[in-house]
Order: sequence, then structure tokens, then C-alpha cells
Amino acid sequence: MSTAGQVIRCRAAVAWEAGKPLVIEEVEVAPPQANEVRLKILYTSLCHSDVYFWEAKGQTPLFPRIYGHEAGGIVESVGEGVTDLAPGDHVLPVFTGECKECVHCKSEESNMCSLLRINTDRGVMLNDGKSRFSINGKPIYHFLGTSTFSEYTVVHVGCVAKINPLAPLEKVCVLSCGISTGLGATLNVAKPPKGSTVAVFGLGAVGLAAAEGARLSGASRIIGVDVNPKRFEEAKKFGCTEFVNPKDHNRPVQEVLAEMTDGGVDRSVECTGNVDAMISAFESVHDGWGVAVLVGVPHKDAVFKTHPMNLLNERTLKGTFFGNYKPRSDLPSLVEKYMNKELEVEKFITHQVSFSEINKAFDYMLKGEGLRCIIRMDG
Amino acid sequence: MSTAGQVIRCRAAVAWEAGKPLVIEEVEVAPPQANEVRLKILYTSLCHSDVYFWEAKGQTPLFPRIYGHEAGGIVESVGEGVTDLAPGDHVLPVFTGECKECVHCKSEESNMCSLLRINTDRGVMLNDGKSRFSINGKPIYHFLGTSTFSEYTVVHVGCVAKINPLAPLEKVCVLSCGISTGLGATLNVAKPPKGSTVAVFGLGAVGLAAAEGARLSGASRIIGVDVNPKRFEEAKKFGCTEFVNPKDHNRPVQEVLAEMTDGGVDRSVECTGNVDAMISAFESVHDGWGVAVLVGVPHKDAVFKTHPMNLLNERTLKGTFFGNYKPRSDLPSLVEKYMNKELEVEKFITHQVSFSEINKAFDYMLKGEGLRCIIRMDG
Repeated sequence: MSTAGQVIRCRAAVAWEAGKPLVIEEVEVAPPQANEVRLKILYTSLCHSDVYFWEAKGQTPLFPRIYGHEAGGIVESVGEGVTDLAPGDHVLPVFTGECKECVHCKSEESNMCSLLRINTDRGVMLNDGKSRFSINGKPIYHFLGTSTFSEYTVVHVGCVAKINPLAPLEKVCVLSCGISTGLGATLNVAKPPKGSTVAVFGLGAVGLAAAEGARLSGASRIIGVDVNPKRFEEAKKFGCTEFVNPKDHNRPVQEVLAEMTDGGVDRSVECTGNVDAMISAFESVHDGWGVAVLVGVPHKDAVFKTHPMNLLNERTLKGTFFGNYKPRSDLPSLVEKYMNKELEVEKFITHQVSFSEINKAFDYMLKGEGLRCIIRMDG
Repeated sequence: MSTAGQVIRCRAAVAWEAGKPLVIEEVEVAPPQANEVRLKILYTSLCHSDVYFWEAKGQTPLFPRIYGHEAGGIVESVGEGVTDLAPGDHVLPVFTGECKECVHCKSEESNMCSLLRINTDRGVMLNDGKSRFSINGKPIYHFLGTSTFSEYTVVHVGCVAKINPLAPLEKVCVLSCGISTGLGATLNVAKPPKGSTVAVFGLGAVGLAAAEGARLSGASRIIGVDVNPKRFEEAKKFGCTEFVNPKDHNRPVQEVLAEMTDGGVDRSVECTGNVDAMISAFESVHDGWGVAVLVGVPHKDAVFKTHPMNLLNERTLKGTFFGNYKPRSDLPSLVEKYMNKELEVEKFITHQVSFSEINKAFDYMLKGEGLRCIIRMDG
């Protein structure tokens, strides 16, 4: 029996309060409206941003809310005006979108869609300013337009990438946020030439994906920079050839890197979001040709400071968002890279839990254990 | 009778003290040593950097000194080991060099030669750490390795571009510094796409050359930003289509530009050296694709500050030095552009004086009159 057009009752992990364990609840999921699709989520994974907004330190808290934005699923039904997707399509929902009509979508360079760009404050759908989730009539807020910690969710069609149905969703779901962010930062923005030296600041999942991008680009030296020395062993799997712990030195890490590389690295990719690390990453690149790429999201009061001569000496400083990938246009080919064995995602997946154990995934991340934890929605 | 190997006695404009009028003196110019050439200067022009270091505010003063670095001349004799140049060659001496052997010279991107990169503190030749200029045995310091305010000067071979002998030196001499700096900042670094919008901060000779580069690139809107409204009339000749005076507004100029351009300009080029203008130029570019290029040289204590989100929203910030031109490799083709009428230099030349009147050129610049003043060495 088709569920299209009907309210679906299903399980969702609801965050009732900041920092308190999620509670599996039965929720009602309304049908998709114009330009929306309803997805059956099969696998979701936990990303730092979920934890950051769940902790709600330093932002306006919005509760109750359903988190989750890295996921893979299948289209259950589509709303009015949706022609690009049909029930049964395999998809990755994405925390940012691609309307295909704004100046950003029409630009070859930008992926910062004016209509569907990430909005962490919004907890409702664009179409009517309301939530599609409720419990006994009381609305539950959305998160990043995805809310994938639910067996069913409603997403704007512009935030859904249709992928090869043969791709294993329990693997490629990690491409819908962090891994693509780091990989694209290197492949699409830093673009290290073959044989070059790349420094990666921060060896979490995003930084390791950036290192993997450097490895795929043929960089000959990949220097991992992290204050946690335990990360280096893992980082070797992602191409890191050397490791620098800023705490081991009593001078700025940019000086250490300059000495190791005869003047500076060719490229650096900053994946921590710490503004001091950003400054170090920039000042670590070689004059004349060095390019630093900022990926990590800074504190709202952070200020990037440097002497302008560091720029005038022909260094380049860029930032990227979601690895400069356009969600609908580019994610399908990233999935194909996986299918063609040009890209390995398995090594990012270190844990797996069933949906009923979702709070374990939070524990792993809070303890800094592992990289990605896949949450199986059927368990 | 050949003068090769002999000391040449000739006229030079000597700066005896900071900020005091130059004095035309008879000086002795020693023959070129290994990897040096002696040039007969025919035309020189005055650039802001000459005035800045002559005023010696905020740097270590070095006097007596012979200034001058924008010039055209002819090789009189060459030192040991010089094979690229021969007496009679027409050349432009340059304030920075290209050894062709260091990592920078071997890089396709950099022009910041490790050996011959600009050094404003050095007043002697590299070969023996001594000056080639003297008056009655007392050495007179060099400036930027060029010291073109002399009928004869000695320059490192790596700082000399050999050009088409048919090119009029009284015109193309201005390509040896400021004009190339501004032009290259746009053509080689900002690279505005056809039809794009470019903002140029600072409408002096360098800024107007940057505007000219935008015009040559096919930019459809070129917005000049300057606190002196008189500059706009002149700027139209260099392609400026609009003008913004930051003093006319009680909000940051980046907001004014964002409003004029529906979100920001595609490219900005900063040619003032004022750090607040640098920040404005950066924050004026459109998110998603905007590129800001810094050209103007900042105060040594200046700090560039911005919120890192301005970068993460996919803006690029770059600096350039001498428009990213490699002096020996690239200046000859820039001269050819002039010869092929693809580039006009006449409109930068607003004054001409004879060598004996060189202090008039300083007066014009101090008053902000005109763009370039050509100094004829034969007068």
C-alpha cells in the first residue's frame, strides 16, 4: 500500500534538550509539499556539526529537534513540481543545496546556492515555514533541512543528490558531508601539483579526507599537524608521510614547517576551525606560489590576522565550503569514483551501531574515538 | 674610444640627505664586475618608491645615495661571465631580478627570485659588497640595484631585461616598474573574466594600470575607488566606468560596492598600500567566486584583519609583487605588446623634464600632479 500523500508514523531520535541523550520517539512525518521529497533513510552517520549544534554552546538553541545530515536513503514520495526524482531513487540528502537557478548555481565556481545555502538557525521547511515532524501535533524542528536521525524525513529537492542505485548506501552515505568537504578542499581548491608538499591541519575525518585528496593528487610529502599524537598512526592510511605536533615545539608551527620544507609547504589545508591554526596554516605556505585553504568553521568572534606582506609575497588564501562540490551536480560522480575504486570510503568507517543505540555514536565522537560511526536505521 | 674597463666620470643626481633636493654631481662609475653590466641611461622616470625612500620616514636611512629604478638604457659594457647581454643592447633595468636558477625562478608561478629579490636596505653590489659609485673616492650608495638617476650605472645582469631595439626608450621605460606592477596584477593574478566587474582601489599610476588591465580583459564595469575625486576624470581614459569616494559615505565602502553590484565585485585590486583599503578591497568581492589582489606595499606594522567566514564563503585573497612578471622573461613581451599597439603607455606619461631639472619631477609627485614624469638624461 502506498504511503504517498499520507502522514507516516515512524521512529526518530529526538533531541529534547541541549546536550541530553536523544530519545527514540514515534513521530509523524507529513507528506512532502511543493519541491520537497520524503525519504526513507537507511543509513546515517554522525558528524561533528550534529554534536556541535546539539550541545548548543554559543548558538541560539532550538529544541526539540531532529539532528542528522550525513545519510543515504531512498525516495518514498515526491511533492508537487518535483520532476528530477521519483519514488525508489537512491539518494544522498545534503545539508546545503543547489537550486540550479541562482547566480551561485549558475557560476562555474560557486556552490553557495542563494536559496538553499546551509542555514543552521532554520528549523522549518522553506515552502510554508513549518516543520514536517510532529508528536501529538506538537512540531519538532528540522536541522540543516535534512534531519536524518529519523526513519523518514522531508527534504527540499534541491538538497538531494540522486546516485547510482548499485552503490552501497551504508558506505557512500559518508560522502554527503565531511569526507567530501575534506576531499574537495584538496582536489577542487588547493589542487596540489604532483610531487608537491601538503600540510593538513587537524587529523579528524575532514582532515584525513583532505590528506586522502593530497595522496590522490600525487603529493610526495603529506605532513599531518595535530595536537593529538595518537592520530598519526591512523593518518598514515590516508597518505600522511610525516607528523608535527605543535605542542612538541616552543616556536610557531609555521616555523617548524618552513624548516622541514626549505621555506614552506606548497599547499596547506586547515580542518580544525581554530583561528590560530588558520593563521599558522596560511603562514606555513611557501612564498611565491603557496596556497592555503581554510575548511574548518571558526568561532563567530574569531578574527584572522596576518601581516599583509605575507600576502604580497605571493601567497594565496582561500576558503571553501563543502569542498566546492555542487551537491546535485557533483556528488553522483563522487559516488562513481567510489564504484570505480578510485576512492576508498571504508577506511573512514570505524564504528557501526543500530538506530536504538544512537547515543553510543555520540559517545564515540565526544571521546574522539574513531572517524565515522554508521547508524543502521533498521536496528 | 671604448670606455669598457675604465672608470666613467658622468653626471648623477645625488641625494645627500633625507628629503633634501638632489644635487647633480660628477661621479665616478667603476666598471662592471662578474655578472654585472654597465648601462648608459637615456630616460628614467620617477616612481613613488624613489620618493618614499628618499624621504626615509620609517626606514633605516642610507645616504648619500643615487635613487631611480624606472628607466631605459643601452648596455655600455659587460662584466666577466655575462653572455646574455652585449654592448649596444637596449634594456630596461629592474628593481628586482631573475637569476634563472633558484626555486622561484624555476617555478612557473613565482617571480620572487631568491638571489635578486628586491632589497631596499642594500646600498651595494652583491659581488663584492661595495658600491660602484664614488665621488673623490667616497662611495655613494646604490638604490634597488638600479640607481638610474645617473648617466651611467652598474646593475646585476639578472636585473636587466633586453628589449626590442626599435622600441622608443622614452616611452617603454615606464614599463620597468609601476605600470607593469598594476597591469600584471590584473592580467596575471586577478584575471577578471570577460564581462565581469572589477574594483580598483587607488587611482595613481599603478591603480590606473590595473584598471587598464581590467579594460584589456574585457571587464564590463570598472569601479575606481579613491579619496581624491579629481582622479576620476583621468581614470576614464583607463577604462573606469564608475567612481566611489569612500568619504562620500558614512558606511564602509565594501557595503557601498556590494549594493552597487548585487553582492560584491568579481575582482578587486588594491593599489594604495593602506591596510584599511586592503581589508575593504577583500571584503568587497562577491562570495562564491570573488578574488581580491593586493598590490600596494603596507606599513611595516600593518595587520590585515578579517572574519574567517569571509574566506570560508569562498573568497580568494592573493598578493602580487611586480605584477607576477619575471623581469627578464616577461618584460620583452610586454614591450612587444606596446609595439603591436595592444598596450598604450603614452597616457601614463604626463610630464617630461631634463635631468638638470630632476627636482621638478619630485615636486610634481609630492603635489600629486600627473602620473609619470620622464627625465631626459641628455638635458
